Amino acid sequence: MAEKAVKIGIVGGTGYTGVELLRLLANHPSSEVVAITSRSEAGTKVVDMFPNLRGFYELEFSVPNIELLKKCDLVFFATPHGVAMKITPELVEAGVRVIDLAADFRIEDMAVWEKWYGMEHGCPEIMQQVVYGLPEVARETIKTAKVIANPGCYPTAIQLGFQPLIKAGLIDTTDLIADAKSGVSGAGRGAKVASLGAETAESFRAYAINGHRHQPEIKQGLDKMAGKSVGLTFVPHLVPMIRGIEATLYANLTQKTSQQELQELFEETYKNEPFVDVMPANSEPDTKMVKGSNMVRLAVYVPPGLNKVVVTSVIDNLVKGAAGQAVQNMNIMFGLAENLGLNQVALSP
Amino acid sequence: MAEKAVKIGIVGGTGYTGVELLRLLANHPSSEVVAITSRSEAGTKVVDMFPNLRGFYELEFSVPNIELLKKCDLVFFATPHGVAMKITPELVEAGVRVIDLAADFRIEDMAVWEKWYGMEHGCPEIMQQVVYGLPEVARETIKTAKVIANPGCYPTAIQLGFQPLIKAGLIDTTDLIADAKSGVSGAGRGAKVASLGAETAESFRAYAINGHRHQPEIKQGLDKMAGKSVGLTFVPHLVPMIRGIEATLYANLTQKTSQQELQELFEETYKNEPFVDVMPANSEPDTKMVKGSNMVRLAVYVPPGLNKVVVTSVIDNLVKGAAGQAVQNMNIMFGLAENLGLNQVALSP
Amino acid sequence: MAEKAVKIGIVGGTGYTGVELLRLLANHPSSEVVAITSRSEAGTKVVDMFPNLRGFYELEFSVPNIELLKKCDLVFFATPHGVAMKITPELVEAGVRVIDLAADFRIEDMAVWEKWYGMEHGCPEIMQQVVYGLPEVARETIKTAKVIANPGCYPTAIQLGFQPLIKAGLIDTTDLIADAKSGVSGAGRGAKVASLGAETAESFRAYAINGHRHQPEIKQGLDKMAGKSVGLTFVPHLVPMIRGIEATLYANLTQKTSQQELQELFEETYKNEPFVDVMPANSEPDTKMVKGSNMVRLAVYVPPGLNKVVVTSVIDNLVKGAAGQAVQNMNIMFGLAENLGLNQVALSP
Amino acid sequence: MAEKAVKIGIVGGTGYTGVELLRLLANHPSSEVVAITSRSEAGTKVVDMFPNLRGFYELEFSVPNIELLKKCDLVFFATPHGVAMKITPELVEAGVRVIDLAADFRIEDMAVWEKWYGMEHGCPEIMQQVVYGLPEVARETIKTAKVIANPGCYPTAIQLGFQPLIKAGLIDTTDLIADAKSGVSGAGRGAKVASLGAETAESFRAYAINGHRHQPEIKQGLDKMAGKSVGLTFVPHLVPMIRGIEATLYANLTQKTSQQELQELFEETYKNEPFVDVMPANSEPDTKMVKGSNMVRLAVYVPPGLNKVVVTSVIDNLVKGAAGQAVQNMNIMFGLAENLGLNQVALSP
Repeated sequence: MAEKAVKIGIVGGTGYTGVELLRLLANHPSSEVVAITSRSEAGTKVVDMFPNLRGFYELEFSVPNIELLKKCDLVFFATPHGVAMKITPELVEAGVRVIDLAADFRIEDMAVWEKWYGMEHGCPEIMQQVVYGLPEVARETIKTAKVIANPGCYPTAIQLGFQPLIKAGLIDTTDLIADAKSGVSGAGRGAKVASLGAETAESFRAYAINGHRHQPEIKQGLDKMAGKSVGLTFVPHLVPMIRGIEATLYANLTQKTSQQELQELFEETYKNEPFVDVMPANSEPDTKMVKGSNMVRLAVYVPPGLNKVVVTSVIDNLVKGAAGQAVQNMNIMFGLAENLGLNQVALSP
Repeated sequence: MAEKAVKIGIVGGTGYTGVELLRLLANHPSSEVVAITSRSEAGTKVVDMFPNLRGFYELEFSVPNIELLKKCDLVFFATPHGVAMKITPELVEAGVRVIDLAADFRIEDMAVWEKWYGMEHGCPEIMQQVVYGLPEVARETIKTAKVIANPGCYPTAIQLGFQPLIKAGLIDTTDLIADAKSGVSGAGRGAKVASLGAETAESFRAYAINGHRHQPEIKQGLDKMAGKSVGLTFVPHLVPMIRGIEATLYANLTQKTSQQELQELFEETYKNEPFVDVMPANSEPDTKMVKGSNMVRLAVYVPPGLNKVVVTSVIDNLVKGAAGQAVQNMNIMFGLAENLGLNQVALSP
Repeated sequence: MAEKAVKIGIVGGTGYTGVELLRLLANHPSSEVVAITSRSEAGTKVVDMFPNLRGFYELEFSVPNIELLKKCDLVFFATPHGVAMKITPELVEAGVRVIDLAADFRIEDMAVWEKWYGMEHGCPEIMQQVVYGLPEVARETIKTAKVIANPGCYPTAIQLGFQPLIKAGLIDTTDLIADAKSGVSGAGRGAKVASLGAETAESFRAYAINGHRHQPEIKQGLDKMAGKSVGLTFVPHLVPMIRGIEATLYANLTQKTSQQELQELFEETYKNEPFVDVMPANSEPDTKMVKGSNMVRLAVYVPPGLNKVVVTSVIDNLVKGAAGQAVQNMNIMFGLAENLGLNQVALSP
Repeated sequence: MAEKAVKIGIVGGTGYTGVELLRLLANHPSSEVVAITSRSEAGTKVVDMFPNLRGFYELEFSVPNIELLKKCDLVFFATPHGVAMKITPELVEAGVRVIDLAADFRIEDMAVWEKWYGMEHGCPEIMQQVVYGLPEVARETIKTAKVIANPGCYPTAIQLGFQPLIKAGLIDTTDLIADAKSGVSGAGRGAKVASLGAETAESFRAYAINGHRHQPEIKQGLDKMAGKSVGLTFVPHLVPMIRGIEATLYANLTQKTSQQELQELFEETYKNEPFVDVMPANSEPDTKMVKGSNMVRLAVYVPPGLNKVVVTSVIDNLVKGAAGQAVQNMNIMFGLAENLGLNQVALSP
């Protein structure tokens, strides 16, 4: 490990994004996790809760201690919504940078945030210093950001899929549809009957059709790309698999455009992106092509005889959709190679 | 078994629709399977290939024998596409009624059929006597049909979901989207690398975005409902589960209509249907709610703030999407109670 | 439904054995569920909790009411351990017969029971009237039993696999090994992190190696078959599937016996059993051959060059391992055909 | 990449062990894959067949070319049984070292090999130079071996589990039982009906009870440990998951030994092994704890009241059971750090 390793604190590491962050950081050569907090698991060795990490960590979960966290270079929040906003101001004050994997800082409009998350926001004044951490959209501002709102999983897959089309002005932004599907780890590690293996296996359903918290987050991002308010229909679905998100995106073309032209547009847009892979024409991106890796894989289609563009986008919800993107943001913030510790090949089969 | 049981022949019973047909007929009180043919498996006991049927059948697979089939009241074809069309005319001539679970008779426009199925049609002249066997659309004509084209799995779920909206003239039929998802049994029992368990498990993808054989079949049905040519975008997906189809349907409302009004429309449309269940408002139909049963379960939504209607529709692809619908058609054709032998409760969990 | 249908009460129907009992009784022609109780869900319609039952039940869950239960012919307990023992005496007193799907009455030795279940037994005096309801072992006494202890899932699969060998005196009963595997529904419908889909999918492990509550239950049954205390090693495992138990049983032969001789022994032992299927020689019983059905399927082997017998036994843990066996017991108790309502063909694929 | 990277040829890389080898070598810092052969896929880019490798390889599959392979430092065979033996002698002659991931060199007794693999052995004379590559048993001889027989997946899990007990002379080696379970990737990437997703999902069975090719391989290893012929009952099972093997091992203790003593024995035996993890007492090794990693995790038990020892052993069949162990062997053979390129954290959830 290099001498100037980033000193990391993790608040709330007992969920799936927490253990995934630990998995990625275990082999990250320029960082060191110095504290991981969990009130409920204080005193438990991290590897006793997550045996896959045996041999990589000696740490125990500890009671949150603000003074200890202040000594870190960077604090990740892998907590439920509403926790990060309580102590982020004090950390920022102390010169610590923050990446929140929850949603506390994702929505700029405080009224919208408070409506969807059902609580008052704890630090609206800090929103000025927040950058929404989607590197393919905001790399430059991420470099110097004090606080990163790490994007949600669906929002990552969907924004990156729509971006080339919206930026190029090729689609009618009043009618965008995102039919998205997620593996069950997206529901988190909380004990709920609906998330039991006997409930989720061998079944598939749409959910939250009348409203999902990621809808305003996605819309906010697409609005910015479009420079105006878009119309977005977002329907999430639950897939009987552990990891992975697939989003199938639909829009109407505003001018006749061939699939080949769109293919070139996508390739050009993302040609320098280390974690966006525009697949060859007529590919069928499959979530197993990104399992355990930080890649987004995209394909773009114009179905024969229609004036419609269809994009399919796949990510691993726990990596590019959460912990991997957080590490990517850390790398950018600390001047490290953007792919440091993120070269995992997707696990297939 | 009643004395006047329907005498049944099954041609090609070694695939998943074949074994499912046998499962349903095993407890059907007014039918008797007198022959099941398979050239490749002739001489094999049905129960040696499908041990779940042990105790229910003594039959062996036999070489196809047209004379024997002519003695049946009804012949089911559970064969690959292109087989039924070869011998159906001779069976009809002999007074035998036919239900084809493959696609030989599903498309009325022979040019379209030949384009999608890549072969010349063997008996275009018989198409006059064919009825497309979706009971909720064509019950009366099914009663007297000589030949039933049993609908495809995706087409069943999608047509029944769109029907109330199109019939009521509430949606813009130039832009219909069906984002559909199927379990892996839909790919059949053929040995293919892409269908291996190590390939399909824990993964999800869209496929055939540039064209799927069910697209013209669905469009044909929707065109008839609309009385004009509709615009249809159909994207199928593969779900890591054995059984089940979920279709999420999108359309733009042509007049302001509330979710409650649509709920009533759906309930009214299907109030007398034994196998269509309009779920209570805000339900999330899940494929496990229909696993092993012949039910379609539907929900209808108007996402807040949008002029859009979303319908979700679930079926078991092997039951309502294939063998169950075939038995339902048989019951209608032979004057039996429509739900005879089809009262299975979905297996949950 | 016949006029003299058995009037049934179900206490505690919100778990997996409860919904499975309702599934089986939905098509049972000589029974009627008149009450189903759940303190926590009182007032909820059964079909709102279990939509697969829509169309089959109008019932709501109700607060347990002993007076109402006393009017039943039969009460099933599908409750956690420790509930049935509290009210069974009063029901028996009132002439109501009882089938407990939990473990309250399975162990005759009260000290053993109290050790494994960690509570005092509520009605040791009633144990005299209890019959352990494994029909293939105790059919005659079941007929007149007041109270049935419905066997556990592992115990059913294992006892039926060992029975022919022990009864014939062919194996060394001091060293019996049962390596058993269960689908995740066996862990119940309680919300636990270890039972989440993201935890159970794609993984396999042994558990409770130092002691599982089914061990004394199995041993009690084998002891009776052997007429002496046996030595039993029982190791359960968790399989990433919803339903099914497979048990692989090992024993040393006390005299040279061929696989063929054992095959005949098994076939002879179970030739009249409606729900035990001895598979042909060299078959490999697969849990999908019994999914949703009440069958046990067995195979017996003598691995070449060894003095060892291996038996494999498969059941659906929720059917023959719970609710199906309970209905089978009901049928026997009330003089109905033993297979009434239990003719489901296993769902395959 | 260091200048002296090991130059690697891979023969037959289109199966699951092939792609896994490529995954592991993609981030191996001291090796370079210079050729990968496949007669059927010659001309296809590796990443077109295995998109998870996109960005890591430019290679195409090529027709096998012995002259090209002779320029390698090391050739891996990831072929069906019977291929490696045909060209290994010529490669060894040319100074190339060979690791065969198939079974051509695993069995020393040629008569036994020919019986189980159904063909004549192509190069019995080379067996002198072969080392069975289980590092935890034969590390020193691996260092200088010309040809490595890379162990089978079941044999790896089972031999490492029994080794401490046999070496310590604590168990009766005349009666060893290995009840082993494997994920479906173990059946390979060949197109077979029995391996279809609709067949393998949601089901569990024992197979090959009357004989599996890994039985003689395991017995050969245990015989060597024991210094005499052991009695081994080996029953493999198929688990509905992609990756992972769990083996539950049973033996009778020859002297009273506590679980604690066995725990210490296991810890002592493997204390210096980088890829064997003896879990804390009373742990339940789960295959997800090793998914994608090269670790073996072990637990040892003495069930209360019995004279029996039970060991549970988990590996990823494609890593420690195949490609990972092959890379470990390569590292040992070429004087590299044994864990080079093998530090993957298991993917959980």
